[in-house]
Amino acid sequence: MRWTRTFIPTLKETPAEAEITSHKLLLRAGLARRLAGGLYTFLPLGLRVLHKIEAIIREEMNRAGALEVAMPCLQPPEIWQKSGRYTDMNEVLYHVYDRAKKEWLLGPTHEENITVLVASEINSYRQLPKNFYQITVKFRDEIRPRFGLMRAREFIMKDAYSFDVDERGADISYQKMYDAYTRIFARCGLRTMAVEAHTGAIGGRFSHEFMAPAESGENEIVYCASGKYAANIEKAVSRGPLVPTPKDSTGPAPEKFATPGALTIEALTQPPYNVPAHYQIKTLVYIVESKPVILLIRGDDQLNEAKLASALGTMTFRPATPEEIYAVVGAHPGSLGAVGVTGLPVYADESLRGAAGMTTGANEDGYHIRHVEIARDIKVHQWLDLRTVKEGELCVATGAPLQTARAIEVGHIFKLGTKYSTKLGALFLDEHGKPQPAIMGCYGIGVTRTLQAIIEQSNDKDGIIWPISVAPYTVCITPLETTQSGQVMAVAEQIYAQLIERGVDAILDDRDERAGVKFKDSELVGFPIRVAIGGKSLANDMVEIKPRAGKLILVKKAEAVNRLIELIQRCA
Amino acid sequence: MRWTRTFIPTLKETPAEAEITSHKLLLRAGLARRLAGGLYTFLPLGLRVLHKIEAIIREEMNRAGALEVAMPCLQPPEIWQKSGRYTDMNEVLYHVYDRAKKEWLLGPTHEENITVLVASEINSYRQLPKNFYQITVKFRDEIRPRFGLMRAREFIMKDAYSFDVDERGADISYQKMYDAYTRIFARCGLRTMAVEAHTGAIGGRFSHEFMAPAESGENEIVYCASGKYAANIEKAVSRGPLVPTPKDSTGPAPEKFATPGALTIEALTQPPYNVPAHYQIKTLVYIVESKPVILLIRGDDQLNEAKLASALGTMTFRPATPEEIYAVVGAHPGSLGAVGVTGLPVYADESLRGAAGMTTGANEDGYHIRHVEIARDIKVHQWLDLRTVKEGELCVATGAPLQTARAIEVGHIFKLGTKYSTKLGALFLDEHGKPQPAIMGCYGIGVTRTLQAIIEQSNDKDGIIWPISVAPYTVCITPLETTQSGQVMAVAEQIYAQLIERGVDAILDDRDERAGVKFKDSELVGFPIRVAIGGKSLANDMVEIKPRAGKLILVKKAEAVNRLIELIQRCA
Repeated sequence: MRWTRTFIPTLKETPAEAEITSHKLLLRAGLARRLAGGLYTFLPLGLRVLHKIEAIIREEMNRAGALEVAMPCLQPPEIWQKSGRYTDMNEVLYHVYDRAKKEWLLGPTHEENITVLVASEINSYRQLPKNFYQITVKFRDEIRPRFGLMRAREFIMKDAYSFDVDERGADISYQKMYDAYTRIFARCGLRTMAVEAHTGAIGGRFSHEFMAPAESGENEIVYCASGKYAANIEKAVSRGPLVPTPKDSTGPAPEKFATPGALTIEALTQPPYNVPAHYQIKTLVYIVESKPVILLIRGDDQLNEAKLASALGTMTFRPATPEEIYAVVGAHPGSLGAVGVTGLPVYADESLRGAAGMTTGANEDGYHIRHVEIARDIKVHQWLDLRTVKEGELCVATGAPLQTARAIEVGHIFKLGTKYSTKLGALFLDEHGKPQPAIMGCYGIGVTRTLQAIIEQSNDKDGIIWPISVAPYTVCITPLETTQSGQVMAVAEQIYAQLIERGVDAILDDRDERAGVKFKDSELVGFPIRVAIGGKSLANDMVEIKPRAGKLILVKKAEAVNRLIELIQRCA
Repeated sequence: MRWTRTFIPTLKETPAEAEITSHKLLLRAGLARRLAGGLYTFLPLGLRVLHKIEAIIREEMNRAGALEVAMPCLQPPEIWQKSGRYTDMNEVLYHVYDRAKKEWLLGPTHEENITVLVASEINSYRQLPKNFYQITVKFRDEIRPRFGLMRAREFIMKDAYSFDVDERGADISYQKMYDAYTRIFARCGLRTMAVEAHTGAIGGRFSHEFMAPAESGENEIVYCASGKYAANIEKAVSRGPLVPTPKDSTGPAPEKFATPGALTIEALTQPPYNVPAHYQIKTLVYIVESKPVILLIRGDDQLNEAKLASALGTMTFRPATPEEIYAVVGAHPGSLGAVGVTGLPVYADESLRGAAGMTTGANEDGYHIRHVEIARDIKVHQWLDLRTVKEGELCVATGAPLQTARAIEVGHIFKLGTKYSTKLGALFLDEHGKPQPAIMGCYGIGVTRTLQAIIEQSNDKDGIIWPISVAPYTVCITPLETTQSGQVMAVAEQIYAQLIERGVDAILDDRDERAGVKFKDSELVGFPIRVAIGGKSLANDMVEIKPRAGKLILVKKAEAVNRLIELIQRCA
C-alpha cells in the first residue's frame, strides 16, 4: 500500500475525549474515530489490525475443533424471558421496536439463540460434542461508555458455546478453550493471566477471566508469583487477614460507652478511644430482595459485593438508605451493631468467627459497645466469605504473599452446566434413549477490546509498538525524498516491490513530507520495522533499518530485503 | 474437513416457512436456520459461502482503490435529521432506546456516518478522491420479511461511498464501481444485468441496479436483446405504446352519455359501448403532500408510481379515498374525468398529448363523455412520463422490441451529487482555497442476498449447484464404506490429504451412512465435484469423479488428484 492512497489521519494533539494511553493512541494513530459516545468507526489501519486479530482467533478456534456460525444481532425477547436473562440482564439490553411495535433485543451474547438452535437441531449423543463460535458485533447499554473501545455501546466479540453429553466432556471442552485462549493472546502479543472469576449474570459453575495487566485496567487481580493461584479480586481468597482477629473469649461483659461524633472505624482508632480497626466490627445494613439484612466484617476489611452475590445466590441487593436503617435498628450509620439484634438475619464474615474483645456500634446514636464476644453476644445466622483479600495476604496454594495488579479483561470462559439447556430445551437422547440436558460452556473474547489492550501494553512516548502478528503493516518504507525521477524513490519502489513479492505486508510512505514528519508518523502508528532510504546512505550503497523498539542498523541496499525478512521471522 | 466434525443438518422435507426455491435449498442444505421472521443464523457451510463471497468483494473493491472501514450499527438520530432521511426513511428505521431513554437508530446504510467523518477529516482537494467501503450488518424494518435472506430484517451489505472534487472525478469513481460490480458478480458465478434505476429515498442524480434474472425476483426489468438498453420497469421508457393514440382533431363536440354500472375501462370496452381501451382516458385522483391532483393516462396503461415520484420530486403521495374524490370532483371512481375541471392540477401522460376522439368519465356517477379532444376540452397543467412500459414496445436505442424479466436486485450504485455533503458539511478547499462540497457516489451490494440469488439461479431438482468460486467445499470425497481398516477408507483419506496439501477445499464424508444417503446429501448441498471411492471400482484401481452438473468419469486412483485439480482449474 502507498501512504497517499490509503487514509491515515494521524493527530499531533490528543482529542479531549481520550483519557487512557491506548485510547489516545487509537485516535492519534488514525486507527479509529468516534461517531458518538461508545461508538467508533474503524479506519483502514485500525480495521487491518482487527482483521489480523480475527484471523488468529479463527485459526485457533478452528484448530480446537470449534465451528464458525453467525447469529443475528436482533433477538426475540421470548427466548430471553425463558432463560430469565430478560430480567437479570435488563440493564444492559437495548430494546428495539419495529413498525408493528413488536419488541426485539440487541444481544450482548447469544446463549439463548445457540441453545434454541441446538434444541431443534441436535437430538442424539452421537451428534455431540459440538462447539459453535462466531465473531460478530455485540451491543451493551453501558451506563457510561468510556475508554474508547474498552467500554463501548457496540463492539466485536468472539463468542463460543460448547455442548457436551457429560461433565467429563464439558471439562475437556472447557480446557480446549482455555488452551486456545492462551495461544490466541500469546499470538496477538498480549500478556495475559488466566484468573478465577465470578460467573455473574451469565451464570454457571465456574469461570476464568483472561486478564491483560495494565495500569488503566478496570479490574483488580490477585495472584501468587508462583503462578499457582490467580483470581479476580471479586473472587480471590487467602489464608485470612495478616493480623489475626482477637479471639480471647474470657473477657468481661459487653459495655456501652459514649462515642460522640465518632462515626467511622477510623475515628474510633484515634484517642481517646484507641481501638485498632481489627478490634472493631463493621456493621452494614443491606436490602436483599426487598428485605433488610445485617452484614458484619472486620473493621479493617472491605465488603466484597461479588462474594455477597455469590453467597446469597442473588444479584438483587443494595446498601440500605439511612432512613431504612433507622427504621429497622433505631440508629444511624456510624453507630450500628448487631449485639442483641434478633429480628433480622445477620451474616458475618468467616474472619470474625470466634472473635472476642471487639468493639461495635450500640444501635444508639453516639454510643458503641466494647468487650463484645461474637459467639456470646451476637446471633449470627450464617458465616460467609464476604471480605476482599488484600495485597500481602498469604496464598492458599503456596503460603507466599499475594500480589495485586490492575488488568483489562479480554476473555472470559464459563463452565455453564445445564442452566440454558434445561430452560430452553436443549435435550439429547443418551445411549439408553433417555433425554438429558446438554452440559454447556460459553467462551468470550472482546476482540475490539483486545486490540486496544495490545496498544495499552505496547507503546512508548512516541506511539504504538505493534507486535508483528497484528501490525497494520509490518514494514514501513520511508524514502527521504519523493521526486519520482530520483534514485532514492527508485530504491524505495524496488524494496517495496520485492517485499510485496515475498508476501510482506509493506507500506510505502510516498508522501511529499519532511523526513521528521514521516518518522514521527511511522513511530506514532507503530509499524514494527521502518526502512529509511536517503541520499546520504545510498551514496555508500546503504539503507537504514529501524525496528520500532530496537536499534537502527545500516545494511547494504542489496541485502535490505533479506535482512528485513530475517528480522520479521525472528520477531514473529 | 470431515463431515462428522462439522455440522450439516440437511433436511429431507422442506420447512413450511420456505416459499421460493433458494429459500428451500438454503434450509434443506443446512446452510442457515431461521431464528425469527427475517432473522437467520448462518450455519458452518452457509458461513463459508458468505466468507468466500465477501473475499471476492474485498479483492475487487481493493483493486478498484476503495478503502475498507467499519462503521457502527447504532447511529445517532441527529445526523439523520440533518440529512432529512430521519423522515424520508423513517418507515424502515429501527428505533433503539438506551437506559437514559436516548434514541438511537439501526442503520440500513451509512451515508450520514461516512459524510460526517469526511467532513471532519478531509479538508483539501489534495486528499481526494477517496472511496470508503465496509462489509457489515445492516438493518431494515421490513413490512413483511420474506423469502429467507432476500428480504430480511438484518442482512450483510457491502456499502461504499466515494468523494470527488468534481463531476468528472465522480463519474470515474462511479464507473470504477460499475466495473468492479460487474467483475464481482461474474466471479461469484451470478448472471446479472446492470439496469437504469430510480434513486428513491437515497437520492441523487442517476443510478444503476445490478439485477440477477430469476423467476422469483421481486423486480421487473425491461431490456433490449441488443444489450444497448436495460432499465428497471419503474424507470423504463420506450418509443411509446404499440398501438398509437388516436389523434384526429376534427371530431364532434364532447357528448355526455349514460353508462349505468360501467365503472371500469374493461366494462366500457364491452357492448353496448365498445370503446377500445386505448380510446379511453383513465382518470386517477391522488393526494400529493396533502393536496388532491388529477392524473391522466391512457385506458390501457398502468400508472407508474416511481415515475410519478420522480416527476413530482416527492414520495409523499397516495391514491385518494372515494370520499376524498367525491369531495373534490363530485363523483365516485368509475365515472371520473378531467373535462372542464379547473380547480385542481391535472397531470397527463405524454402518450395522451394531442389525443382526440377519446372517452372519459363525466364526473357524474353513471355517465361518461365521448368525442373528447384533450387540447380542446381538458386543461392539462403538465405533461409527464407516468406510464409503465410494456413488453414488446420498441427500444429507444435500437427500435427493437423490448423484453421483460423478473429479477433479484443484488447491487445498486448511485451518483449522489452533493445532497449529503452539503447538508452534513463535507466541504473541501479547492485549488483556489474556496470551500466546495464533495461530489459523492454510493454503492451497495446485498451480500447475503447475493448468496441466495446464486442458489436461485444455480440449482436443479436434486439441490444446489455451487459455482466453484463460492462453494462451501470444492470437492466432496465420498468413501462408500467407512470401516477404518478397509482399503476404501485408506484411499479416501489419502486423496483427502493430498487435496488439502495442494490447497483444495475438500470435505471427507466419513459418515457411516449408505452410499445413497451420502450422494443425495452431497448433491443437495451442491459441492461442485464429488469423488466416490468404492470397493468395486477400486478392484480395477479406479475411482469415480462426478462434477455436480456434469457426467461421471472413471479415473485411475493414482491420477485422481491431478484430474480433480484440472477440473477445478477448468471450471474456476
